[in-house]
Amino acid sequence: MVGGAEAAFQQLEPALETLAPGTDHSSRTPGRKGSVEPAEKGYLHCGPPGAGHYAKMIHNGIEYGLMQAYAEGFNILESAGTPEAPEPYRYEFDVAAIAELWRRGSVVESWLLDLTAAALHADPDLDGFTGHVQDSGEGRWTVLTAVEQAVPAQVLTAALYARFRSRQESSFSDRILSAMRHQFGGHAEP
Amino acid sequence: MVGGAEAAFQQLEPALETLAPGTDHSSRTPGRKGSVEPAEKGYLHCGPPGAGHYAKMIHNGIEYGLMQAYAEGFNILESAGTPEAPEPYRYEFDVAAIAELWRRGSVVESWLLDLTAAALHADPDLDGFTGHVQDSGEGRWTVLTAVEQAVPAQVLTAALYARFRSRQESSFSDRILSAMRHQFGGHAEP
Amino acid sequence: MVGGAEAAFQQLEPALETLAPGTDHSSRTPGRKGSVEPAEKGYLHCGPPGAGHYAKMIHNGIEYGLMQAYAEGFNILESAGTPEAPEPYRYEFDVAAIAELWRRGSVVESWLLDLTAAALHADPDLDGFTGHVQDSGEGRWTVLTAVEQAVPAQVLTAALYARFRSRQESSFSDRILSAMRHQFGGHAEP
Amino acid sequence: MVGGAEAAFQQLEPALETLAPGTDHSSRTPGRKGSVEPAEKGYLHCGPPGAGHYAKMIHNGIEYGLMQAYAEGFNILESAGTPEAPEPYRYEFDVAAIAELWRRGSVVESWLLDLTAAALHADPDLDGFTGHVQDSGEGRWTVLTAVEQAVPAQVLTAALYARFRSRQESSFSDRILSAMRHQFGGHAEP
Repeated sequence: MVGGAEAAFQQLEPALETLAPGTDHSSRTPGRKGSVEPAEKGYLHCGPPGAGHYAKMIHNGIEYGLMQAYAEGFNILESAGTPEAPEPYRYEFDVAAIAELWRRGSVVESWLLDLTAAALHADPDLDGFTGHVQDSGEGRWTVLTAVEQAVPAQVLTAALYARFRSRQESSFSDRILSAMRHQFGGHAEP
Repeated sequence: MVGGAEAAFQQLEPALETLAPGTDHSSRTPGRKGSVEPAEKGYLHCGPPGAGHYAKMIHNGIEYGLMQAYAEGFNILESAGTPEAPEPYRYEFDVAAIAELWRRGSVVESWLLDLTAAALHADPDLDGFTGHVQDSGEGRWTVLTAVEQAVPAQVLTAALYARFRSRQESSFSDRILSAMRHQFGGHAEP
Repeated sequence: MVGGAEAAFQQLEPALETLAPGTDHSSRTPGRKGSVEPAEKGYLHCGPPGAGHYAKMIHNGIEYGLMQAYAEGFNILESAGTPEAPEPYRYEFDVAAIAELWRRGSVVESWLLDLTAAALHADPDLDGFTGHVQDSGEGRWTVLTAVEQAVPAQVLTAALYARFRSRQESSFSDRILSAMRHQFGGHAEP
Repeated sequence: MVGGAEAAFQQLEPALETLAPGTDHSSRTPGRKGSVEPAEKGYLHCGPPGAGHYAKMIHNGIEYGLMQAYAEGFNILESAGTPEAPEPYRYEFDVAAIAELWRRGSVVESWLLDLTAAALHADPDLDGFTGHVQDSGEGRWTVLTAVEQAVPAQVLTAALYARFRSRQESSFSDRILSAMRHQFGGHAEP
């Protein structure tokens, strides 16, 4: 994902083409015919300076959303065996096996799913992680851009906030809710 | 909020009128003239059996959303003093005083804000709560109804999910995210 | 909500006290005793320069969330009479009457509800509005601040995005979804 | 994704194995050694009756979330050329080319991205769609299950609500917001 002046891009293009994954990486998109476009070789002049960075940030913003979609889905499966699940829907799923299964002919096939299947095979309960998820700025950049352009980005934002939330012990926000509940209903809150 | 057959409602109406808050509770809505409607006295025949329960559930669903809106706002104010806040926006707010202030002529005046101001005056850091927030079913009912009727209810649902999240220690969902990050980027996740 | 140097605030305080709503505006918060704090009179020195603006922005961010909570709830009630609603839950609610009712002794009492009741009394179907909702920057400011401080603000953000979405005719985002559905399932999408 | 009694599954297993995609569909997951598990051949006994349906529903719930993540990201890219975008970030992206590019070595590679690239190549502006997106029940099932099990599913739910919203012309919800804005600020709302 390259941004910059046309002349600068042209000067660098041979190097970019050499470094790019190339056409062998994926099968050709149905409907594409004739000469091969740069994007099909794995590099692209996205526009003037900043355009490459912009495209890369949105790429990562999408990545946040995809990751959170898988995380929520596997979490539902994993929690299907808990007492919270009403009896007729209580199941003990082998989550690692389901991740493996979905790699073969399902609609949710992806590289991120391949990674998830590998991680779940190695450590089915993922006990090696605390669940405090870092973010390195790209998700924030995507949300700020959506807000500036006045376009809704509910899923990408929810994915970012899930990470923020994962790093908080007991948030002031939640204690405010408990305090209100205690006030108006005499609800005994822990 | 009463549901039931018209005849049953009429039989009970004198008792309901006696129990209701009455017209003195609030000033009359601008534009209303002439005879006083039951709703202005604080009771209402909402429709056939089930309609009263329905209205009450949605009332509580709204309540979840209002509570979460205040909770998020006060949380942002409270966290303005943390190192996460970039320097020019780092402030040590007196959150209890701001809640008190907003009770007087602001757009966010409400009974829930009155309760929040009282709770924050009594315990400014709300250390008396763990932040594990219960839910007693009405918020769930509201979300299930929204889904059945195919109408979006993003805020009411987010408010419900915030309570679910508040009761989880370390969710499997978050550990899935860390596992993916570790796989694809070699990110060191705690 | 005032920000500024202590000396500047003290010089202006007499004018601010004169302009503020005063103690008569609301009943005293339970638990407060003795001398009356400035916040109880309706003005507050929130901190150094910028702190007053910050508090005002968060106030408006909360306002967005409260408004959206009411909007979603009334929308569910209004749509309960549509064919999308499964038969046992299909009701024709008098939404204006319910708004009026909730002004009297309910948990969701607020000034915004008072306004909603007045608007619904004047125009029960709200046919006078297109449903294209403007935003004037404070909601955006709140979201950007939440992201910068790494605190989740799911409800306040969803409220902002609902406004963005209300102004779009047919979004590219939705057409992407239809295009995918058409591709993978041969789903006939309009 | 098969649910049912162990004996019934065993009787059907030869047929399922014949119908399944088989091991050639994807490369073996790193870390897996020795005998090949059924999931690696593309079929799985998920548990007792109902378990297969459950797993399939969550699969589709994840699908909704993935689709919405791509949709939001491409929408941000597409809207980068509009006047809403502040000048330094205004770019005219070739969205079809970017989708093609991301198929080759990016983190967001997936089968759904392959489909998106094909759709955007055939019709770069997707003018063939109105943007009214259908849902066929699986996303709803996933959300209802999350609520019943008390686990947050913010992204999967937001994806479902985006589809609901896409089918509404002018929602009552949005008109409520305009009515409030008109009341409290004299904001001229369309």
